Amino acid sequence: MKQVIEKLSKEKSAQWPDFFKIISQDLEILEENLVVKLPAKSKLLKEIISYIFLSGGKRLRPAISLLIAKATGGVKDKHIILSEITELIHTASLIHDDIIDSAKLRRGNETINSLWNNKISVIAGDFLFGQASVKLGELENTEIVKIYANVLSDLCDGEIEQFSLLFNPDITLEKYIGKSTSKTASLFAACCKASALINNQPIEIVNSCNQYGLSLGIAFQIVDDILDFTSDSKESGKDVFSDLKNGLITAPTLFALNSSNERAKQIRILIESRFNNNENDFDKALRLVFELGGCEQAKQLALNYIENAKESLSFIKNPELKDYLLAIPETITKKIK
Amino acid sequence: MKQVIEKLSKEKSAQWPDFFKIISQDLEILEENLVVKLPAKSKLLKEIISYIFLSGGKRLRPAISLLIAKATGGVKDKHIILSEITELIHTASLIHDDIIDSAKLRRGNETINSLWNNKISVIAGDFLFGQASVKLGELENTEIVKIYANVLSDLCDGEIEQFSLLFNPDITLEKYIGKSTSKTASLFAACCKASALINNQPIEIVNSCNQYGLSLGIAFQIVDDILDFTSDSKESGKDVFSDLKNGLITAPTLFALNSSNERAKQIRILIESRFNNNENDFDKALRLVFELGGCEQAKQLALNYIENAKESLSFIKNPELKDYLLAIPETITKKIK
Repeated sequence: MKQVIEKLSKEKSAQWPDFFKIISQDLEILEENLVVKLPAKSKLLKEIISYIFLSGGKRLRPAISLLIAKATGGVKDKHIILSEITELIHTASLIHDDIIDSAKLRRGNETINSLWNNKISVIAGDFLFGQASVKLGELENTEIVKIYANVLSDLCDGEIEQFSLLFNPDITLEKYIGKSTSKTASLFAACCKASALINNQPIEIVNSCNQYGLSLGIAFQIVDDILDFTSDSKESGKDVFSDLKNGLITAPTLFALNSSNERAKQIRILIESRFNNNENDFDKALRLVFELGGCEQAKQLALNYIENAKESLSFIKNPELKDYLLAIPETITKKIK
Repeated sequence: MKQVIEKLSKEKSAQWPDFFKIISQDLEILEENLVVKLPAKSKLLKEIISYIFLSGGKRLRPAISLLIAKATGGVKDKHIILSEITELIHTASLIHDDIIDSAKLRRGNETINSLWNNKISVIAGDFLFGQASVKLGELENTEIVKIYANVLSDLCDGEIEQFSLLFNPDITLEKYIGKSTSKTASLFAACCKASALINNQPIEIVNSCNQYGLSLGIAFQIVDDILDFTSDSKESGKDVFSDLKNGLITAPTLFALNSSNERAKQIRILIESRFNNNENDFDKALRLVFELGGCEQAKQLALNYIENAKESLSFIKNPELKDYLLAIPETITKKIK
């Protein structure tokens, strides 16, 4: 196993963008902690955990959190634990999301529910949530416990909100941003805020870090939603067009629906009928989203949030670290440029 | 809704055993907090939560925790929060267990996965775990955060251990007790220990409370396992004979398997073949468990743990409270007498 990890770490480091490199040692410790050190007792669970953490994941949230740590006083042991907590919660929520969405592919690999089954996925997700709680206890910081507890609560709220808004063309931009905040940005914000808190930063800096994570997270979700329309399955490592197909109204569809063009009404009718009236209803709706410029407008919205994220970094004086943290938003939007 | 709660509270109080009555006010607050005060945003989730908490549940763990509070210095606001956390974790784990076991009945009512579906059950369970985390944060006590984080971890371990030991006749008594501790007793122990910790009790008393919960929890699980053999579906409110049918080797089967009687080998063969060789294989195995006295031996084991639980209460001087806490084990074993 040790050799597998070393090989993996080398492969990973080679793929990492530049801004990961100054925290590569920390990320390697994180990788080992996730892949081999989680105290799973059963052989089956050990196998699933290795599969999950070896089969991809960019460790974007831990990287951001560690860079914020570097920018606010340096990386301490507790920041490594914080990174683990963040990645554990993120991964657990993906596993349970894949049950909810009946997803077959994730990060280019088969999902746990597809490779094993829904029951195993419930347990595996719960185990990772449980491990996140144990590590949260190790931080011995009640403020961070509260922040992450709210993230867990937000994640469920986002998931349920999403579930209850399926095939509803009346979803507003505000609701969409609210759902994206709960489902995605809340964890980005938490890992940035908690990182600054561990370094005992003053409240203004803690808030700026929180704002950076929040804006970045919302932009990340919008970009992810655009990619569901514009990338192919091989490139994104996920099923594509699955959002609209499953009735999930994301930014591109939302903008198309709100277009003043007459064809906006057609999309509405197609969604309300759940693409069930004619065989090619779904393809028609998809084409309309593109024709009405839904993806371009969504892209502009993502760029606005990226600008907000960058502005929150004005407190950082070290030019190298600032460049790295500014590079993260660029990496996120690069995919849709 | 308020009227429903009042009606329910009255019905509940009428059913409560005597030892619940001195904490009935606290239990009523708990009831209202669970049924109507959880901050679920979506209508669907609100409905599910009401269904879950209105459709039964004896609130045994909160009651024990509150009685321990009374016996160690009095019930404080934080004890109510602790009771909520305990019941939330217990309920969330039941919801996810029902997915894993494909159970149709729980507390005499249809399960969430049966009434809605597995996806909704995943979300509902996660939401309750999330709420438990939020309330854990409110306690502002890192020691209790650690205790409950380990409970969450134990719950998963127990579930996975159980899953990986299905149809395995070689399970030892030690493994069975270990699994029962993780899956059940760990939460009983935590709610007793944390209750004493909130009241700033000395370490010996905290440990005694922990021991009381642990022994009580193991006994509770053994009794529950016996009831799966001896009660009917209407009485237990659950599917019966489902453990053995699903390959789960609990105390009664374990004792029958370890009997020196020649027929023990027959059970082993039937389990190993997953009752698939002949139509009446399962009925045959069930009969053998009864004939070999599996349930009687399991009962004796439960009574031993009950004795341990009672012995842990020697520190309590108030005779009335001691009687109440001694009455709880009696209530548990009454069902198998």
